[in-house]
Amino acid sequence: MSAVRGPITIALLGGGTVGSEVARMLLGNASDLEARIGAPVRLTGVAVRDVAKVRPGIPADLLTADAAALASSGADIVVELMGGIEPARSLILSAMAAKSSIVTANKALLAADGATLYAAAAKNDVDLYFEAAVAGAIPLLRPLRESLAGDTVRRVLGIVNGTTNFILTKMDEQGADYAKVLAEAQALGYAEADPTADVEGFDAAAKAAILAELAFHTRVTADDVHREGMSSVTASDIEAARAMGFVIKLLAVAERVDDGVIVRVHPTMVPRTHPLASVREAFNAVFIEADAAGQMMFYGRGAGGAPTASAVLGDLVAVARNLTSGGRGPRESVYADLPVLPVGDAMTRYYINLEVADRPGVLASIAQAFAAEGVSIQVVRQDGHGDDAGLVVRTHRATDGALSRTVERLRTLDTVKSVLGVMRVEGEATP
Amino acid sequence: MSAVRGPITIALLGGGTVGSEVARMLLGNASDLEARIGAPVRLTGVAVRDVAKVRPGIPADLLTADAAALASSGADIVVELMGGIEPARSLILSAMAAKSSIVTANKALLAADGATLYAAAAKNDVDLYFEAAVAGAIPLLRPLRESLAGDTVRRVLGIVNGTTNFILTKMDEQGADYAKVLAEAQALGYAEADPTADVEGFDAAAKAAILAELAFHTRVTADDVHREGMSSVTASDIEAARAMGFVIKLLAVAERVDDGVIVRVHPTMVPRTHPLASVREAFNAVFIEADAAGQMMFYGRGAGGAPTASAVLGDLVAVARNLTSGGRGPRESVYADLPVLPVGDAMTRYYINLEVADRPGVLASIAQAFAAEGVSIQVVRQDGHGDDAGLVVRTHRATDGALSRTVERLRTLDTVKSVLGVMRVEGEATP
Repeated sequence: MSAVRGPITIALLGGGTVGSEVARMLLGNASDLEARIGAPVRLTGVAVRDVAKVRPGIPADLLTADAAALASSGADIVVELMGGIEPARSLILSAMAAKSSIVTANKALLAADGATLYAAAAKNDVDLYFEAAVAGAIPLLRPLRESLAGDTVRRVLGIVNGTTNFILTKMDEQGADYAKVLAEAQALGYAEADPTADVEGFDAAAKAAILAELAFHTRVTADDVHREGMSSVTASDIEAARAMGFVIKLLAVAERVDDGVIVRVHPTMVPRTHPLASVREAFNAVFIEADAAGQMMFYGRGAGGAPTASAVLGDLVAVARNLTSGGRGPRESVYADLPVLPVGDAMTRYYINLEVADRPGVLASIAQAFAAEGVSIQVVRQDGHGDDAGLVVRTHRATDGALSRTVERLRTLDTVKSVLGVMRVEGEATP
Repeated sequence: MSAVRGPITIALLGGGTVGSEVARMLLGNASDLEARIGAPVRLTGVAVRDVAKVRPGIPADLLTADAAALASSGADIVVELMGGIEPARSLILSAMAAKSSIVTANKALLAADGATLYAAAAKNDVDLYFEAAVAGAIPLLRPLRESLAGDTVRRVLGIVNGTTNFILTKMDEQGADYAKVLAEAQALGYAEADPTADVEGFDAAAKAAILAELAFHTRVTADDVHREGMSSVTASDIEAARAMGFVIKLLAVAERVDDGVIVRVHPTMVPRTHPLASVREAFNAVFIEADAAGQMMFYGRGAGGAPTASAVLGDLVAVARNLTSGGRGPRESVYADLPVLPVGDAMTRYYINLEVADRPGVLASIAQAFAAEGVSIQVVRQDGHGDDAGLVVRTHRATDGALSRTVERLRTLDTVKSVLGVMRVEGEATP
């Protein structure tokens, strides 16, 4: 293919927080960008909903309301920052058909239909970069797509939602309840008025799907992800975790198992000595285990206009360099085509917090429930006595199916008054 | 330029631990690599010192003792894993002249003369990748070279030497002396019989030079790096750090200042809440601050055959993809050409531990020494009394020059019996 000579033209779809910041950085850092790319860049237009609105740093004559025309205008690079599935998908596909390379931050679209975009990029021989779609400014997808391209990824553990990590950090620091901390997070702008997408794990599940698709070269959509939110985590769960040397994080877990892939999002107990445990407030981090490289972690700002814009600019520079050299970036495909297996097949450990009767034979009956499902107990701790007797159990590794069946058995025992808490445990040294 | 069709040919210089592992991964993962690259790869030869030695996983007919002939054989990619400055530099330059792209892990060469390699790669229009040269398997250089290409890096703080981090971790955990822990590290294979390159900071200084050159697009060699080793760190320094909520790390610091660049390696006190504080044992991590992206950290295995081989393979796949698509990876240059300034110009904070006389006016005379150099005190703590009086001071930010002149003034005071410890403090929130 022929290399572009002369300026690299860029069309921007979306003029919100991130789009405006990208436009400002493109216009403001032009000479640095030219030095790094080897050619000047030229912004040809910014598609916005309201062309009458003044956007500081963006010349008014670049604004247009006709996104479709701008998308298919044949710019060297089309940057899609509108979000949502449609019309973003149609605009990206029409841009690729016009031989434009794509930079996007569109998490929802990639999680719903990444494979279609991968295939269209390959068919039209254009680049598709989307670093900003997962974990904002953290350069994470590039290492996964490129640095680890010669290795085999086994497992990805991510704190990929800043809102829930902020809430869990404050609950841990203050011993406060979920509701109180959520209100504080909303007041500070870390949580939306309707926090469902964050606290129920929808946002993390979309990111988990994108990570799993890249890590395992297998089609994974947000609907394939087992999802449990963190709104039911209580101050006493966090206190119990602390007493055992753990913190609670909302983790996205994507793992390769013998015959497939399992992807899940749920509150998780993590040892305080694990690198993910020290990821605080609204920061994100993704921990990766690969056969040869071993354990790695990537940490940084997961959201915000400037960090996300930085990730978009990094992608823009990479695509522009490819264009000036006549090359192409990494091609993704779902060639491995592994089955996505149910969460019941995952190997994990449980923490189980029980209120029990205080009489002879209680521990024996409970131990019997674990044994019946072939689940081995790692730690058991009995607190108090009389009517308040509490029993905390941490298990060894077993399938999630066997562990959840064990919990169902415990619920039926007359020695168990109630199951106060159940949570998966990740990040301990195996087994 | 034309894209390569048919197999990508690879010549390997060096058959040591990493070289053998790379050869085995190339031969063993061939079908996966072909899927990811879009073309098969073929290993054409492995240059070794002793062709008679059996190397499991490498067919004997690939071995050659003639590194010069293999380097200039015109393979698509030459992988240099011999280490050292010569003959590695000459071999790489002759390979580039034969239009071979280069993958290398050669830290010493890049730290001594990276700019020559950058220029030769540009002149010959070939790729030069060297992810494995710094922090082993951690995908760090690729983000720095590519993801942050549209941003401005201000500061890089790195734990880039696993041996010294292992020693400092054990000293912190066990309260043990340097000499005892060094002996343990040597027994475990984490430290060499002659540990000078690690404990005196030479290894970290080489990596700091490479990071600074990439981050600031400015020629920085190992000789430009202000270097202080960690062999003088005592158990009581670590105890004092712990009492204040800090840990001691050997940090590589590369920073952009108003009118230049400063690069330094020295033992440093870091707050326990800082992400670098939780990097334990032989792990490495690099913390980066950029204008738009904010704070980021990259964590993983800094050394070892398999992790380093993973990084080399990732580079190999990237270069091979560039070759199949007809493109080129990022070009480095030292275009910014900033001056490298002396450590005295760096803004930092000091921790100073003094044994003082216990009589009226001592604190006043000490405070006067700080004031005379314009250094502001952040925390002062007086311990004990009588002959054992100790005074610990942490300063606010000041130039390293003013801080070290303050220490010289303290040494001359008759109220100061001795200066027990002086260490820089990094990673606190400014100012």
